[in-house]
Amino acid sequence: MAGSSFGKVFQVSTWGESHGPGLGVVVQGCPPGITLNEAVLQKALDKRKPGKGSTSTRRKEPDRAEILSGVFEGVTTGTPISIMIRNRDARSRDYHKNAAVFRPGHGDITYQAKYGVRDWRGGGRASARETAARVAAGAVAQAILDTHGIIIKSMTLALGGVAIDKMDTDPVTNRLECPDSVALEKMETRISYVKKQGDSLGGVVGVTAINAPAGLGDPVFDKLDADIAKALMSIGAVKAVEIGAGCRAATLTGYENNDPITVGGFASNNSGGILAGISNGDPIVARVHVKPIPSISKPQQTVDQDGGETTLSTTGRHDISAIPRINPVCRAMLALVIADHLLRQRCV
Amino acid sequence: MAGSSFGKVFQVSTWGESHGPGLGVVVQGCPPGITLNEAVLQKALDKRKPGKGSTSTRRKEPDRAEILSGVFEGVTTGTPISIMIRNRDARSRDYHKNAAVFRPGHGDITYQAKYGVRDWRGGGRASARETAARVAAGAVAQAILDTHGIIIKSMTLALGGVAIDKMDTDPVTNRLECPDSVALEKMETRISYVKKQGDSLGGVVGVTAINAPAGLGDPVFDKLDADIAKALMSIGAVKAVEIGAGCRAATLTGYENNDPITVGGFASNNSGGILAGISNGDPIVARVHVKPIPSISKPQQTVDQDGGETTLSTTGRHDISAIPRINPVCRAMLALVIADHLLRQRCV
Amino acid sequence: MAGSSFGKVFQVSTWGESHGPGLGVVVQGCPPGITLNEAVLQKALDKRKPGKGSTSTRRKEPDRAEILSGVFEGVTTGTPISIMIRNRDARSRDYHKNAAVFRPGHGDITYQAKYGVRDWRGGGRASARETAARVAAGAVAQAILDTHGIIIKSMTLALGGVAIDKMDTDPVTNRLECPDSVALEKMETRISYVKKQGDSLGGVVGVTAINAPAGLGDPVFDKLDADIAKALMSIGAVKAVEIGAGCRAATLTGYENNDPITVGGFASNNSGGILAGISNGDPIVARVHVKPIPSISKPQQTVDQDGGETTLSTTGRHDISAIPRINPVCRAMLALVIADHLLRQRCV
Amino acid sequence: MAGSSFGKVFQVSTWGESHGPGLGVVVQGCPPGITLNEAVLQKALDKRKPGKGSTSTRRKEPDRAEILSGVFEGVTTGTPISIMIRNRDARSRDYHKNAAVFRPGHGDITYQAKYGVRDWRGGGRASARETAARVAAGAVAQAILDTHGIIIKSMTLALGGVAIDKMDTDPVTNRLECPDSVALEKMETRISYVKKQGDSLGGVVGVTAINAPAGLGDPVFDKLDADIAKALMSIGAVKAVEIGAGCRAATLTGYENNDPITVGGFASNNSGGILAGISNGDPIVARVHVKPIPSISKPQQTVDQDGGETTLSTTGRHDISAIPRINPVCRAMLALVIADHLLRQRCV
Repeated sequence: MAGSSFGKVFQVSTWGESHGPGLGVVVQGCPPGITLNEAVLQKALDKRKPGKGSTSTRRKEPDRAEILSGVFEGVTTGTPISIMIRNRDARSRDYHKNAAVFRPGHGDITYQAKYGVRDWRGGGRASARETAARVAAGAVAQAILDTHGIIIKSMTLALGGVAIDKMDTDPVTNRLECPDSVALEKMETRISYVKKQGDSLGGVVGVTAINAPAGLGDPVFDKLDADIAKALMSIGAVKAVEIGAGCRAATLTGYENNDPITVGGFASNNSGGILAGISNGDPIVARVHVKPIPSISKPQQTVDQDGGETTLSTTGRHDISAIPRINPVCRAMLALVIADHLLRQRCV
Repeated sequence: MAGSSFGKVFQVSTWGESHGPGLGVVVQGCPPGITLNEAVLQKALDKRKPGKGSTSTRRKEPDRAEILSGVFEGVTTGTPISIMIRNRDARSRDYHKNAAVFRPGHGDITYQAKYGVRDWRGGGRASARETAARVAAGAVAQAILDTHGIIIKSMTLALGGVAIDKMDTDPVTNRLECPDSVALEKMETRISYVKKQGDSLGGVVGVTAINAPAGLGDPVFDKLDADIAKALMSIGAVKAVEIGAGCRAATLTGYENNDPITVGGFASNNSGGILAGISNGDPIVARVHVKPIPSISKPQQTVDQDGGETTLSTTGRHDISAIPRINPVCRAMLALVIADHLLRQRCV
Repeated sequence: MAGSSFGKVFQVSTWGESHGPGLGVVVQGCPPGITLNEAVLQKALDKRKPGKGSTSTRRKEPDRAEILSGVFEGVTTGTPISIMIRNRDARSRDYHKNAAVFRPGHGDITYQAKYGVRDWRGGGRASARETAARVAAGAVAQAILDTHGIIIKSMTLALGGVAIDKMDTDPVTNRLECPDSVALEKMETRISYVKKQGDSLGGVVGVTAINAPAGLGDPVFDKLDADIAKALMSIGAVKAVEIGAGCRAATLTGYENNDPITVGGFASNNSGGILAGISNGDPIVARVHVKPIPSISKPQQTVDQDGGETTLSTTGRHDISAIPRINPVCRAMLALVIADHLLRQRCV
Repeated sequence: MAGSSFGKVFQVSTWGESHGPGLGVVVQGCPPGITLNEAVLQKALDKRKPGKGSTSTRRKEPDRAEILSGVFEGVTTGTPISIMIRNRDARSRDYHKNAAVFRPGHGDITYQAKYGVRDWRGGGRASARETAARVAAGAVAQAILDTHGIIIKSMTLALGGVAIDKMDTDPVTNRLECPDSVALEKMETRISYVKKQGDSLGGVVGVTAINAPAGLGDPVFDKLDADIAKALMSIGAVKAVEIGAGCRAATLTGYENNDPITVGGFASNNSGGILAGISNGDPIVARVHVKPIPSISKPQQTVDQDGGETTLSTTGRHDISAIPRINPVCRAMLALVIADHLLRQRCV
């Protein structure tokens, strides 16, 4: 059944596999009159693309976005916006060796179970490459948020077991998006070590939306936090989502956790900007916990399609960690949720 | 905009406020021929209803379910099933005192911001009472899962900061659903203490589905874990959702986290039964982190509807913790997701 | 799969069978602050209920509406509105005789094919009785339209082959809703004759919305006329839907059919108020062609559930024609579509 | 709000304007293992494309389809299928002259009212060119129907006021798809005449699905006939939709209209293969009434964007009638509905 559409008023439908001709998205419900062009999309995509930095794969993709509809004379027309990104540097041969083997931690075995066939090239539809389409869609959403002064930020809170301790750096100034200069060094050290081991790492990313108005969210199922949880959990490699105080809230008492209300606003933000599923005007705060990339060089035990046990050693060009390339994807998904609910709120 | 429907093939639409005439749900897409009757629903509802145990409110509701359509001669007809639960023991006067005040940690202030009006009686639509409708819907879903031998269980993993350490007890034998006899005692001690303080507690609940077939989930947005995250996060008081190894996975390396595949199945289950958003046949494992109940007797700082600062002291009959009454709600939501995806998988 | 919900922003989900405990609807997405009470609903339902007039069944149903949620202190809260109508005068025994027989022209044989079981009492979910829920939902929609000055009217254009020729009467003043005094008499004569024959009649109903603003409709699939066509065709007994000049437009040339645009507005309204699927501000004009009621006393050839041929003679209390009781249902469905699109347009 | 998606299990989302870079569709929910390739799509598109025949525009578009995802080794993978058709022969300058004028009968004035901006080139999103994407989607649907032996046919029943009288020709053998050799000649004569007048014509198209199983349709709103009505009415220029006996049924008595049931099946097919909104196994029969193309050379009265009255004379390359190019679009839409409901029925 259809499962690649997200959002109800502002709705995006993505398509494309890692080694197919390309990837893309159709964005419906973008209001008319929003400034949009390929440069805007490119800026967002460049923050995600492969080929940059210590944790990143050596696959080189220009990720050049092309707008095929929905924009006329530099502004959106209100009609569907189709965006395409051609694949250029697919090396399917890297995957051919393991075409008949189920790679542990990947969707090979489950895609086979579900569909009966699978595109083994580069992970097919399950590949993280599909997130390029999400980032393009997120850029359109952000163009809407810009008209409301809503800003979305992210930062790396932990990587490979190294957690931040303080914030003394602007995350945007380093490639790991880390706000703690000391932790940043430790992270890089950890990465180098693990790279030599032929292994991979996970981590935690925080993502925030500032200046979102109060009133967003449609209880009781389409609550803002519920939609954010779905949006973030749908990103490959995410295994947990927190809102506000998150896991920590479960250890507090009511008196400790409740955010007192004063004439100047809320005295704290354990709620993460959301109460009873509706935004309250405070920063919307979420965190995603990202598992380590399943593709590693270290040999692993697995089975092949005929059921025989075998050992797998993954070659090809892989990331050491989904962080920091997952960070713009988290921002994009949060932008999609907020844009959708911003427009939904107009109907109330 | 509409926000009270969940699911696409097996779709439930809930309605009702805490102090209105009643609550209910319309279930669409239940296949015909499923055995269903009011006794089945009542059994599920009885596990949730108020008036039982140390953490529970003293409000007494029989929560008697009435099936109004969709069942004929003891089996479902395939047409919409309407279930209603009348409210009997609403004490609106308990809330009248604070009708013009925004209670911290509650949806009062956000419902007012969103809708411009709010039903202050008992929390209105934001009240946890709406979960009775979810449990009724979950019972219908479970009737479908029963025909596939799929079992859903839950247990309390932590409460008030006390975490379990081992499993030596069947959770169903004690009212806190705790599997650790030693932790259970400590939890009860903590509860008594906090009750005297006029405060409240949070905790962690684990919920699992066993025997679900492989292949459930519709990538890339309607992944099984994404829909589970939405389902669980939509429950009031939930602030974090984990799948499988969850937060812990973020601290592991790829080699440590990947579940090796053997001819006998997966050697471990860090994935929580879901790979690339699709179930793999292993137990589906999730955890929810629950914030402490916002309604406490201890005085809190807040503002009233005219913007003046005031102190709030909540009276009325309230739970000390959402646990364990939230446990059957978690089971119900997991049942809804799995029933929906079970039927969706037939279309592939 | 779920199929009893209509609308996207203003969404209604109906439930209930002819001889079950009752019928009802859950309305989601109604904006807050709309005046709504049971008297308003009752007024709409009274125009539909059985027991009135020459064409109508002798089944007596008070069709008393009860609002179970979503309204507080006389206005909608923005939360789901649940409405229930209890069945009082079901005579299942009338149907027992034919429980194992497929009645020609009815859904007996197709419900059996689809679901494998069927509720034979009074036609079950396929009974026209389910339209009571639609009329209740339509009353809520109309309450929204009232705030915009949008009026919906209907009239009978033909019945039993007798077509109107002029308009010299206010349709609301006679029970057949006929605007032509001469045709009205002929219709009544035809009805008497056919009643004695133990047969039934069809006809044509026109329904119009006045003062709807321009801009409603979401191309290319959720066009306003496309949604109107679905809404009206979904009413039992409807076999054709026309918009504006409808069938006649197909016989005209472009020059004859195009509505010239002047500074005062459109010079004609062949478009029926809709151009390229979007309303243009002119009256929205539609017509439905209604087949004759399948239940007749005259013996008919059919088969029973075991496949043996038999003759059917329907007893029970039946309408001679779906008109005029179908007229308020048509108005209700048009109201639902316009309310949904009115709210949808706010998101543009 | 999003409005360019159709279907629930088998869902298509179209995009593209007449003079933008291209058009396309994303198809979700196509089961895996279906044979699909560009030749199959091309065959369907070639029946629709411009440049052929007496009624057709002189715009030459190769309409070459490109499959960008969802197909691997010649079969569908179950993941989204993206299809694109590049625009080659757009002559925007033809439209520039009238960029500031509202063309009567077109969506210029309503698109402006709805969106506040409009793409005046070739009619933008409102152009009939968007139907190329529908035909591509319909080809994918037909590939699914092929596996069930379901055939969809169409024929022209009337054009320019000339109605067929008998069937003595296979419609596929002449470009107007007319089954009556005598009527065919008269139609051609009428077309020549009207062409010289600088005017246009409408007509009636019949479309049928054969071998669809019984049981398709999800009452009460997603009935098969209701979804067919929406699908067909959504095609530009359609002003009426009939099912089975359609308008004629309204003139019959119940005894005349009911299809008697015999052991060999239904004795007649006034129902059009649908009873109570569910297919009964007989041929599904529908008819669309098509208004004349609004673009004519004859001068028409209209206003421009500043509100001043003016006379419009449309140049450019236009069809004389939407028929017969609309015929494959009708077939495509019927295929979409049946494919969706075929898959939906698996969930029952």
